[in-house]
Amino acid sequence: MATPVQVIHNVREMQSLVLAWRRAGLRSGLVPTMGALHAGHISLIHAAREKCDRVAATIFVNPTQFGPKEDFSKYPRTLDADLAMLSEAGCDAVFVPDREAMYPSGFSTSVEPPSVSQPLEGVCRPGHFRGVVTVVLKLFGIAPTDASFFGHKDYQQARVIQAMASDLNVPMEVHICPTVREPDGLAMSSRNRYLSPEERQRALSLWRALERCRLQLACGEHRTAELAAAMEKELISGVDAIEYAVVVDPVTLQPIELVEQQAIALIAAKIGTTRLIDNLLLSTDPRVTTTDATAKPTSGNPSQH
Amino acid sequence: MATPVQVIHNVREMQSLVLAWRRAGLRSGLVPTMGALHAGHISLIHAAREKCDRVAATIFVNPTQFGPKEDFSKYPRTLDADLAMLSEAGCDAVFVPDREAMYPSGFSTSVEPPSVSQPLEGVCRPGHFRGVVTVVLKLFGIAPTDASFFGHKDYQQARVIQAMASDLNVPMEVHICPTVREPDGLAMSSRNRYLSPEERQRALSLWRALERCRLQLACGEHRTAELAAAMEKELISGVDAIEYAVVVDPVTLQPIELVEQQAIALIAAKIGTTRLIDNLLLSTDPRVTTTDATAKPTSGNPSQH
Repeated sequence: MATPVQVIHNVREMQSLVLAWRRAGLRSGLVPTMGALHAGHISLIHAAREKCDRVAATIFVNPTQFGPKEDFSKYPRTLDADLAMLSEAGCDAVFVPDREAMYPSGFSTSVEPPSVSQPLEGVCRPGHFRGVVTVVLKLFGIAPTDASFFGHKDYQQARVIQAMASDLNVPMEVHICPTVREPDGLAMSSRNRYLSPEERQRALSLWRALERCRLQLACGEHRTAELAAAMEKELISGVDAIEYAVVVDPVTLQPIELVEQQAIALIAAKIGTTRLIDNLLLSTDPRVTTTDATAKPTSGNPSQH
Repeated sequence: MATPVQVIHNVREMQSLVLAWRRAGLRSGLVPTMGALHAGHISLIHAAREKCDRVAATIFVNPTQFGPKEDFSKYPRTLDADLAMLSEAGCDAVFVPDREAMYPSGFSTSVEPPSVSQPLEGVCRPGHFRGVVTVVLKLFGIAPTDASFFGHKDYQQARVIQAMASDLNVPMEVHICPTVREPDGLAMSSRNRYLSPEERQRALSLWRALERCRLQLACGEHRTAELAAAMEKELISGVDAIEYAVVVDPVTLQPIELVEQQAIALIAAKIGTTRLIDNLLLSTDPRVTTTDATAKPTSGNPSQH
């Protein structure tokens, strides 16, 4: 039996625990989540355990990062299963605040996200990243660990958080860890629970589109417009709506004409009413393994900039 | 001879020093300044020394908190004298970054300040508090001490920073320390250096207006409109323009009709081209000493909210 994870609801109690770890000379890591945990989240706990003496997670379905027509109210809440998975993975503590603990009466500060937040998700989900960086900065203050761990599946989110933490000199490393996929290639996501069996099959077209993109690049196609067109061709057969399917600069997420060294392919699409995203790092160097299963986590120590 | 203060220009070096203090179990305090130090700043160093084992200051004339027509370029820079005063006061380290260290190429995150930033200075100096809270949050990240110390003279600024730190769960106490005055009552300010001898005399009308306000309250005048009118009457004889002279709620800085228990009188006025501010906490309880010389510093531990 794994030791049960310590569940904390109170801001001060969480802060005290993490500061006590620090005073004891223990290196600590943080994995912020919205719950509905799957193997992707658990891989972040494992990554944190590898680099740290103590690991904290947070579970909070943050209302301010959902648009008015988005799935906040129906977002899956599976706390008991989440706690069991965290315990099993060796997570030491999990912060599970209610809305009032995070946004008490009078709360009125927000963080205006960095420029990498503007394209793609920034266009499709106005205000989303303001909600994300504000809540993440709060969680960084509530659990002031040495390092934090985010998934590559939400690549733009991870880049936005890295840039925010760097711009604001947050004294914490921000690591991006590989996407975890189902055996058939579908990226793990809490929103996969929304898919019917038929939709689940069609959702595979995101992965197939990314793989086709990678293959075309390997065959010498460096023009991003052509690579995007190849992805769209694959997606059209499976998804109900393509929000974007692009190949862009992996740091700024700005458009590029040609893949010179590294680039990232990013997709957002709808299957029925479910919105899914996925991405794949691309490289023109055949020695660089571009499948995310074996991709090295990129890490950024904000204070190095 | 006092030990010379350690001067640090590099973000990482400053972060490392403060984190090393923390690892050594030392409690540390931070005094952010724009330099041109006077006895008011030094009182903050002393307050920090009383509560902490190690004290850091910062000197940075932050361009983003000045409006286009304000005095950024002519703001006094007196680094050698500042360092001598900090050494004499027993400050351990001072962070003196250049603009590039604070705002490197690509910097694009900002903090949208809390609602207490909106009235008064928020109206007179649009964008000022966005610049202030963004740079202060960065300094809190660069020097992650246990406590920080701000002057009561910039009362709204101090309240804005307290609210920001509370809203964002910054794990740091934010203390507001008493205003230090010249023997004749003029509040210490780096901008007093701009005043000609004749203007210096007229500048006293700010203090006289605040004292008159306090006296009227002591005589039973609780109506804020009447108290404000009394201040204006005093100011008119001395200053060249009144930006505001009000009695408001001391927590929210919102208008109130009557002084019920505590209130704050706040003034901004121009003497020639020099803009000065001053304020005085008011209380209807005669047992509460309302002169700031003996006022107790109010402290706020953000995580307590």
